[in-house]
Amino acid sequence: MPSPATPATPTTPTTPTTPTTPTTPTTVSGLLRSIAAVGRDRVRGGFSRPVFSSAEMDLRSWFVEQAEERGLEVVTDSNGIIWAWWDTASGVRQDAVVTGSHLDSVPGGGEYDGPLGVASALVAVDILRARGTSLERPLAIAVFPEEEGSRFGIACLGSRLLTGAIDADSARRLTDADGTTYADAAASQGQDPGLIGVDARTLAQLGVFVELHVEQGRGLIDLDQPVAIGSSILGHGRWKLSVGGQGNHAGTTLMTDRRDPVVAAAKMIVSIREIARTHPGARATVGRLQPVPGGTNVIASRVDLWIDVRHPDDAVTAAVVEAIRARTEVQAAEEGCTALLTLESLSPTVHFDVGLGGRLQELIPAAPLLHTGAGHDSGILSTHIPTAMLFVRNPTGISHSPEEFVEDDDAEAGAVALADSLAGLLS
Amino acid sequence: MPSPATPATPTTPTTPTTPTTPTTPTTVSGLLRSIAAVGRDRVRGGFSRPVFSSAEMDLRSWFVEQAEERGLEVVTDSNGIIWAWWDTASGVRQDAVVTGSHLDSVPGGGEYDGPLGVASALVAVDILRARGTSLERPLAIAVFPEEEGSRFGIACLGSRLLTGAIDADSARRLTDADGTTYADAAASQGQDPGLIGVDARTLAQLGVFVELHVEQGRGLIDLDQPVAIGSSILGHGRWKLSVGGQGNHAGTTLMTDRRDPVVAAAKMIVSIREIARTHPGARATVGRLQPVPGGTNVIASRVDLWIDVRHPDDAVTAAVVEAIRARTEVQAAEEGCTALLTLESLSPTVHFDVGLGGRLQELIPAAPLLHTGAGHDSGILSTHIPTAMLFVRNPTGISHSPEEFVEDDDAEAGAVALADSLAGLLS
Repeated sequence: MPSPATPATPTTPTTPTTPTTPTTPTTVSGLLRSIAAVGRDRVRGGFSRPVFSSAEMDLRSWFVEQAEERGLEVVTDSNGIIWAWWDTASGVRQDAVVTGSHLDSVPGGGEYDGPLGVASALVAVDILRARGTSLERPLAIAVFPEEEGSRFGIACLGSRLLTGAIDADSARRLTDADGTTYADAAASQGQDPGLIGVDARTLAQLGVFVELHVEQGRGLIDLDQPVAIGSSILGHGRWKLSVGGQGNHAGTTLMTDRRDPVVAAAKMIVSIREIARTHPGARATVGRLQPVPGGTNVIASRVDLWIDVRHPDDAVTAAVVEAIRARTEVQAAEEGCTALLTLESLSPTVHFDVGLGGRLQELIPAAPLLHTGAGHDSGILSTHIPTAMLFVRNPTGISHSPEEFVEDDDAEAGAVALADSLAGLLS
Repeated sequence: MPSPATPATPTTPTTPTTPTTPTTPTTVSGLLRSIAAVGRDRVRGGFSRPVFSSAEMDLRSWFVEQAEERGLEVVTDSNGIIWAWWDTASGVRQDAVVTGSHLDSVPGGGEYDGPLGVASALVAVDILRARGTSLERPLAIAVFPEEEGSRFGIACLGSRLLTGAIDADSARRLTDADGTTYADAAASQGQDPGLIGVDARTLAQLGVFVELHVEQGRGLIDLDQPVAIGSSILGHGRWKLSVGGQGNHAGTTLMTDRRDPVVAAAKMIVSIREIARTHPGARATVGRLQPVPGGTNVIASRVDLWIDVRHPDDAVTAAVVEAIRARTEVQAAEEGCTALLTLESLSPTVHFDVGLGGRLQELIPAAPLLHTGAGHDSGILSTHIPTAMLFVRNPTGISHSPEEFVEDDDAEAGAVALADSLAGLLS
């Protein structure tokens, strides 16, 4: 257990420190700068904060401190989701208005994807406090683990476990690149992997979820606006393609005697792009690829690669994947190799709750509607409660990269829009 | 310092334990079985024993123990090469007959590549002792670090440092996949990176070098013989190809808006194979490849891949590489990417010393001559002293893979052939 602030026993709340409402609200940019040294990746650039790494655990401790400084009561549930509660006078936790995001990152990711939503939630609490807001419903800030799926391959793993979108046994068996299971990684950080899975008690406390996130595209640049309301999340899935060949020595094996899975995989990657291009609106990406064993002077015995496929129409996503499966099987056979395509996760297109979205449009009328191609915990939770998103302008349009950016003014505008939204929902 | 048996101060010999000549020689297979638990790779299969890892350090300690049990005096030099000395009565260390190999492995490598030569050297000492051999010249067993180059990218790094085939500053700056420098890795194991580089004092002690190694091909299977004498090492080199593109989010970036270095690299890999095929006898391999940052839901910003190129005629190797450079530059431009090809190491074709090879043919007349496509420390040392190799049959013909194999009888036959060779050279 790295910190007494993130308890292993899910139902034991920590003792809040003396609630001190800051007289001047802290700023989103100030909060983000206070964690800018955590998890820097000197090889890739940007930040690498995979779930259960020391960097991610440091950020969780930071969040708990920040929440407790604001007098919020912090509970880490059995799935490793942190909940920071601002209760009503009655203390009853139901029909809560929830905001928040995640603190884990892709390898070499940007500063804002995840932490912007967490920092904005903390600042929104400051703003509501400064305005003297009184609560009709409880407010909670949630921090979800493994949103990116960058360590164990399944995006939004925390919210999937909470809602039962993945079964606990499958989750426990997930392995990272080093062969460590999710169960072992969770246990090493003081969590009991025997307790993960659907958490009906926590789910019953939630009313709505509003997640603020940096925009991962150019929509708000084109609209010349700092903040938008999310309309939908593009359906997407991840497949793992294992290409098997014959490992051997790079110097002693003639070119004609080879069954080299790297060459087979290379042909497949080119085909995957071609297949995506023939389906308008589809995106197919190979961003992660691992030759085994991976030595310079070794013909690989296997290549594992991961394919991310997205399209607004779930039937087209399926058609793209089937075309990839058929083409890669032929290409593997041509190279004397094998190909095995397996689904790792699939999320249909999510249309956010129309009622909640309409209410947000009344509360922050300047914000336009925008859809997103990126998956989020709000998409997973949408099968259980009304969910909504706010997006904050990213002047580079680039995401999952050190070049991801948010202007300080836009970050503060996002926190104000979030506070306005929450205030309307809480009253 | 992990063990008092591998001293940090290069010129301080360890104190040998009481010399006890085994009455029955130990066996090569028995020695290899005694280290079969060290560095197993549960993800890739086989063994992963990169230089300075705990596995490789455990093997070094094991070697020092084995050498000291045999009454050999162990010195670790300033480049991390271990020398175990069987001195003549005069104690003068010059014109020594040296044998040995390496203990590091490729990722997921086999049991024999390296350790077979070290274990055979120890058993050859036992055989010479049992025969009552008296020395006219000193004998040394050498263990070279980073022969595979699997951690820092330069094969035969220990012998290159010893002979000046790489300069010390370049070596110190080499980095592994985690960004750790060679200097830091060496220091973490108690070596002084300030002292690495040409070691004229040690070089002056060496007379000839005979390296025994598992065969990395099917030559001895076809010849139906257990042991061969090496004739030459195929010239080879390693080049790093960095393909730069634009990192971005896999879901939010349209296919038409991408500059994806993974797709560019895939096209290049297919071309590299085609180029090698158009040059008879050439081998070109991409066995290591690393998208940066390497996330499933991330369009990579860069891909680093390593190309191993070999041909008996060094001019053809150069022509293959130039063809690769020209083709990949065009392919990078087609994809809106950049390509940078840099040489990491280059070894011209080595023809082993004709005099020494002729002498070995007299000493072990049953052994045929065989060339190899694999690089070895004996190739690097051949620019300073006469060198030779013995190869032991590998019934799978597969190397750098868990499937690499040596029959116990062949391993013992190898040790006898090595003992016969050394006896002739020592008298």
